[in-house]
Amino acid sequence: MTTKVNRQWCLATRPVGAIAESNFEWKQELVPSLEEGQILVRNIYLSLDPTNRGWLNEGENYLPPVAIGEVMRGFGIGIVEQSRNTNFPEGTLVQGFLGWQDYAIADGTDLNQFQKDPFVPLTAYLGLFGFIGMTAYFGLLDIGKPKAGEMLVVSGAAGAVGSLVGQIGKIKGCRVIGIAGSEEKCHWLKDELGFDAAINYKTESVLESLQQHCPNGIDIYFENVGGEILDAVLSLINLRARIVLCGLISQYNATEPVPGPYNFINIVTQRAKLEGFIVLDYFDRAQEALADLGEWYAQGKIQYRVDVIDGLENAPSAINKLFDGTNQGKLIIKVSEE
Amino acid sequence: MTTKVNRQWCLATRPVGAIAESNFEWKQELVPSLEEGQILVRNIYLSLDPTNRGWLNEGENYLPPVAIGEVMRGFGIGIVEQSRNTNFPEGTLVQGFLGWQDYAIADGTDLNQFQKDPFVPLTAYLGLFGFIGMTAYFGLLDIGKPKAGEMLVVSGAAGAVGSLVGQIGKIKGCRVIGIAGSEEKCHWLKDELGFDAAINYKTESVLESLQQHCPNGIDIYFENVGGEILDAVLSLINLRARIVLCGLISQYNATEPVPGPYNFINIVTQRAKLEGFIVLDYFDRAQEALADLGEWYAQGKIQYRVDVIDGLENAPSAINKLFDGTNQGKLIIKVSEE
Repeated sequence: MTTKVNRQWCLATRPVGAIAESNFEWKQELVPSLEEGQILVRNIYLSLDPTNRGWLNEGENYLPPVAIGEVMRGFGIGIVEQSRNTNFPEGTLVQGFLGWQDYAIADGTDLNQFQKDPFVPLTAYLGLFGFIGMTAYFGLLDIGKPKAGEMLVVSGAAGAVGSLVGQIGKIKGCRVIGIAGSEEKCHWLKDELGFDAAINYKTESVLESLQQHCPNGIDIYFENVGGEILDAVLSLINLRARIVLCGLISQYNATEPVPGPYNFINIVTQRAKLEGFIVLDYFDRAQEALADLGEWYAQGKIQYRVDVIDGLENAPSAINKLFDGTNQGKLIIKVSEE
Repeated sequence: MTTKVNRQWCLATRPVGAIAESNFEWKQELVPSLEEGQILVRNIYLSLDPTNRGWLNEGENYLPPVAIGEVMRGFGIGIVEQSRNTNFPEGTLVQGFLGWQDYAIADGTDLNQFQKDPFVPLTAYLGLFGFIGMTAYFGLLDIGKPKAGEMLVVSGAAGAVGSLVGQIGKIKGCRVIGIAGSEEKCHWLKDELGFDAAINYKTESVLESLQQHCPNGIDIYFENVGGEILDAVLSLINLRARIVLCGLISQYNATEPVPGPYNFINIVTQRAKLEGFIVLDYFDRAQEALADLGEWYAQGKIQYRVDVIDGLENAPSAINKLFDGTNQGKLIIKVSEE
């Protein structure tokens, strides 16, 4: 035993609808002593992502559900503070599923060591140079296959993934329309990120605005949201349109079965392709994405913002910012100092 | 003017729900004399297909809607009876959109000449060796990309396309489950066509029967129907499943917007691909399909049945056999003697 206290958010009950703090139990325990081969990781940043919501449901997903009583699964960045594993000396930075807690004990098997670039903030490794960047990069380029001059529409456009997708689309020569949930976000997309237009789905008819901005139809749709926005897009897709199914945020808190898009038949008539993907499948190709993203970032072609919430204790309340649209970029919990 | 009478079914009103005979007007007119370059085709067989229903709706489809007052569009086979076009001598067999009428006058531009193989019935050129065979062949092989040992599920399995898809799937080494709407059809699929199992969706729970027949999940789904069957299949798809969207027959008569599949999110979690296609796009590759289909037919590996209804006057009532499940194979209207 050490005298370090490990605070943890453990799953107490499965949420019905939106996540409530009462779905988690706040536990505190002393960090046990390490066994041979183990390391103690002090968590620095935790990534909060819409997909976390799916892990809380019973039943099949792309990862097993978090078990009741278990520390909430969370991807994060930490530093090795104690080590009985020669592969992970003290001071090593690691990434992986460290969980919603102050400290993680691990044997290193599932953790990825990395070195921080001095010109890149550490939080970027949970965003632009992490899952998020790879999601945008491979989803758009591998599945969306954009060609210069094509019309790309992105939902959740001011979100962590969506904002990158639009910027990569511009780099590839597409015309890019973003759909987001506030005037501030729409201004950011147009004025700062170079989107050709942005639609505020809370104040505009998405269908009418898309008709106006896409008089020649939509070639690629990068889908983060689902629901009525997908319906509107499907009614305007071009021949051989590609729909990249990244996520369906609008459905994650649903308590009843959610219907698929009403304009489903258009997938047939337009010979469209709709494909789901999970970024975990692209990890062996990470370097491809990181090389391009790094170059674009260094050239000032990509901007990126993070929304860092201080304190592990705030994780259960902060995560709902992803669903009510109040986050202002990649949502991150700061657990301890860098 | 000749003294030949041309009987025609012209679109009078757009159907709401199922097609009614009252949606068409029965007209009779004398066949006009040919102008230079024209041919007179005597229609022999007309193909009735689920997709015809979509042509009757106002608004966009993969072909323009049939206009009110216009002869109903229909693909068919005919013979040149008079010719003032040296490219189409009298006696030439032609295929194309000849329409629901006794005679078509054409300049030949959109008609395809062909020679009947003495060992093949003429009706097969509207089925196995026509649109239907190509739909099954390219849909399954190009989009479904079956591999030996994979689980293939086909809806509308006793229909013209579905019955071929299953047999081609067996030739390619798949395990094949068909979903159809009667015991007779299910027996035919299993006992005559070699499907591994067949599910009667009218008397069985499709989900439970699929769970039983596909304990290791579904790799390929060839979709002709939509609705609850698609929901059931999506709940059982494997990683990287392919869903070939050929048609959504269950929706063609809908009078209200139809929701897409409720298990849409599974496309993301299973990284599935869902792709629509229209056989018209594959016409330049017709010979590929016809060579294989011809060889399999000659080897007795493919069986095929046609449901020929005698008399042009019966077209508007016969077409509903495609939607109420009473057709017994490729539905064809016999307009005149071969």
